Amino acid sequence: MATVPLLTDEEASPEARAVFDDIRKTRGGDFINNFWRALAHDPALLKATWERLKQVMGPGELDPLTKELIYIAVSVANSCEYCAHSHTAAARAKGMSDAQHGELLAVIGMASQTNALATALQVPVDDAFKA
Amino acid sequence: MATVPLLTDEEASPEARAVFDDIRKTRGGDFINNFWRALAHDPALLKATWERLKQVMGPGELDPLTKELIYIAVSVANSCEYCAHSHTAAARAKGMSDAQHGELLAVIGMASQTNALATALQVPVDDAFKA
Amino acid sequence: MATVPLLTDEEASPEARAVFDDIRKTRGGDFINNFWRALAHDPALLKATWERLKQVMGPGELDPLTKELIYIAVSVANSCEYCAHSHTAAARAKGMSDAQHGELLAVIGMASQTNALATALQVPVDDAFKA
Amino acid sequence: MATVPLLTDEEASPEARAVFDDIRKTRGGDFINNFWRALAHDPALLKATWERLKQVMGPGELDPLTKELIYIAVSVANSCEYCAHSHTAAARAKGMSDAQHGELLAVIGMASQTNALATALQVPVDDAFKA
Amino acid sequence: MATVPLLTDEEASPEARAVFDDIRKTRGGDFINNFWRALAHDPALLKATWERLKQVMGPGELDPLTKELIYIAVSVANSCEYCAHSHTAAARAKGMSDAQHGELLAVIGMASQTNALATALQVPVDDAFKA
Amino acid sequence: MATVPLLTDEEASPEARAVFDDIRKTRGGDFINNFWRALAHDPALLKATWERLKQVMGPGELDPLTKELIYIAVSVANSCEYCAHSHTAAARAKGMSDAQHGELLAVIGMASQTNALATALQVPVDDAFKA
Repeated sequence: MATVPLLTDEEASPEARAVFDDIRKTRGGDFINNFWRALAHDPALLKATWERLKQVMGPGELDPLTKELIYIAVSVANSCEYCAHSHTAAARAKGMSDAQHGELLAVIGMASQTNALATALQVPVDDAFKA
Repeated sequence: MATVPLLTDEEASPEARAVFDDIRKTRGGDFINNFWRALAHDPALLKATWERLKQVMGPGELDPLTKELIYIAVSVANSCEYCAHSHTAAARAKGMSDAQHGELLAVIGMASQTNALATALQVPVDDAFKA
Repeated sequence: MATVPLLTDEEASPEARAVFDDIRKTRGGDFINNFWRALAHDPALLKATWERLKQVMGPGELDPLTKELIYIAVSVANSCEYCAHSHTAAARAKGMSDAQHGELLAVIGMASQTNALATALQVPVDDAFKA
Repeated sequence: MATVPLLTDEEASPEARAVFDDIRKTRGGDFINNFWRALAHDPALLKATWERLKQVMGPGELDPLTKELIYIAVSVANSCEYCAHSHTAAARAKGMSDAQHGELLAVIGMASQTNALATALQVPVDDAFKA
Repeated sequence: MATVPLLTDEEASPEARAVFDDIRKTRGGDFINNFWRALAHDPALLKATWERLKQVMGPGELDPLTKELIYIAVSVANSCEYCAHSHTAAARAKGMSDAQHGELLAVIGMASQTNALATALQVPVDDAFKA
Repeated sequence: MATVPLLTDEEASPEARAVFDDIRKTRGGDFINNFWRALAHDPALLKATWERLKQVMGPGELDPLTKELIYIAVSVANSCEYCAHSHTAAARAKGMSDAQHGELLAVIGMASQTNALATALQVPVDDAFKA
C-alpha cells in the first residue's frame, strides 16, 4: 500500500495522462507500472522525473544494459525494495543473463564489504588516486 | 589518518607480505594502496578480502570496466570516500572515458532520486516484476 | 510481522501502560500505533523514546508541520518503511496539503540526487561554507 | 581533492559558462561554489542539475527556508559531507536562527533513532496509516 | 517474492546441494532458510558466501552471541528487512535474553542519533582519537 | 571544520559547562572531545544527548565493550567518520584487543555483504523467523 492512492488512467489529470501516453509510446507497450501511477498525484514531478529518466537511460556512451546494472547497484545500496524489483525486471528485459546477474550480485556484495572496511578503518586516500 | 597505522612492507607480517606480493604480481606494478596497508593488521582478513576481490573483479560475463562502474555506484550510495576515489581511479585505468564518467554520474543521480521517491511513496511492487 | 509480538494493553506492563496512557492523553485519542506496542517489551526504552519524542516534536522555533516534513525526509533517506507511512500520515493530520507533499517529494528527490553527485565527485568543501 | 579537477571560468566550456552565468544571475553574486565547478566537466549534467535545482528550490507551497531544512535532513542521513556544509550555510543565508538550527538537529537525531528502532523491530504498518 | 525463484533441494544443482548439505551438517538441523535457496541460482556465489560466513561467525576472540548482535546492528543500519529478522532469530537461538535485546536496541538507537548529529555538525576528529 | 564553531569552556554557557563538568566527573578525566564542544551551541540538546548516552552505555545486561562494538558497527554502516574514530578509540580504551578488532571488522564486512545480497534478491522472510 503506497502513501498515496495509485491513480488509474481515468483518475489521472490530463497532464499526467500525457506522460502516461509518452511512457507507452517510448516503451512500445500498454503497461504503466505503479511508480508512475503513484507519482501522478503531482503531474509536474511525474513529468520532470519521466523526462529526465528517458534522457538518462537512453542510448549514449554506456549501453542500456550497463545502465540498468548500475541502477540496480544504487537501488540495492539504498535499500529500495520497489527499485530492486523493477530494475532487475528491466535488466532482464534488456538481456541480462543469469550468469551476468550472478556476477552483478558478487560485485555488489564485494563493494558493500570493502566499503564497510574502508569506512571502519578510515583509510586515507592515496595521493595517487587524486585527480 | 586511519583508525590503525598503515603498515609498511617492513612492518607487515610474512603472511601480509605474501598478500602484498600477490597484489603486485597480479597488478603488474609495485604500488600497494593504503586500503591493503591498513588491512594488513589482520593478515587473515587481508588475505580473504584480496583473494575474493581478485576473483570477483576478474574476467567473466561482465567486462572489467563494467564491474568498476558498478563498484563506484555502490561506493557512492554507501558514501565511502576512500572507495569513491580508488574505484574512480581504477575505472579510468581500465579505460573509462570522460563521457562515460558523466553518464555514470547521471545514472547514479537518477537512481538516487527515484529510489527516494519510491521509498517516500512506498510504491507496492507490480505483479509483473515478481520472479 | 515484527521481530517481537505487539503488546495489547492487557499484555503490557504497568510501566508500559503508563506510557500508553500519556500517549493517549497527549494526542487526545485512544489509538496506540504499532511502534509503541512493539517497544513496550522494554518499558524503559519505550518511556525514554516517547518522552524525548514528545519534547522534540512539540511547539518550538519550528512549527509542528515543518518538523514532520523533516522527519519524513530523514525516514526516506534511511529507507524506513514504517516511518515513511507513519510520518506521512502524521504530516497530513497536521495539515500537509497535496501540493506541499509534492514539493516535499521534489526536494527529497533533488537532495538525494545532488548528495550522490557530490559524493561521487568528492567535492571539497568551499572555504566560504566553513563556520 | 575531487575525483575531477575543479574548472575555473576560463577552463569551463561555453555551455558550462552559460550555466555559471545563470547561477550568478539567479543568486545575485559572483561566487560559484565547488559543486558546480566539478560538475562542469559534463556541461549537460551541470545544466540539467542546476535547472532542476532552481525550479525545485524556488518559491512554492513550502517556503525556501523549510526546503533548505529538508535538504539538510536528507544530506545528513545520506552522510554527504559537502552537502551538510553547503546547505547549512544556505539555510543560514536564508535566515535560519541558532535556535532553529538546534531544533533541526534534534528532529534529525530523533528521526534517526526511531528509524533504527522501527527497522530493528520490523514494526508492521498500522492499517490507519495506509492511504 | 524474491527477484529469483527460491530453489528446492530438487531444483538446486549438485554444487548448490553440496552447500545445503554442509549448512545442515554445520547447524545440526534440516532447515535451509530462504536466503540460501535464493543464492542457489549462482552456486559459486552461494559457496563463497556460506564458507566465508561459517568462518567469520565461528568461534574466535568474540563469542558467537556478540557477533550476532553486531550483525543485527549492521543489518538495521543498512535497513535490511530479511537480515533484521533472520539475525534476531539467530541471536535468540544463541541465548539473547529479552533484556539484552532491549539494550541492543537502545545502543543502536543511540548510535543512530549521535551518528546523525556528528554528521550534521561535521565535527572534526580529535587528535586524541587518531591512531 | 564543523558547521558550528567548537566552544571552549569559556565560551560555553553555564548550562553547557555543567554538562562538561558531568562528562569530566563520569569519565574521570579532563578531556572534552569535539562532539560535545559542537553540541554545546544548544545546551538542551547537549544535556539530553549526554544524559541518554551515559544511561545507555553504562553497566547493564551487555558489557561496556560489547556496547562499543555495536556502536562502531552502526557508525560504520551509517558512514560516520567522526564516530568511527571516536568509538574505535573508546573500544580500545575499554580493552578491545587487536584480534577482537579484526574479528569485528570481519563481521561488519560479512554483514554488509549479505545485507546487500538479501536486498538485491528481495528474499522473503521465512515463517520460522517471525516472532
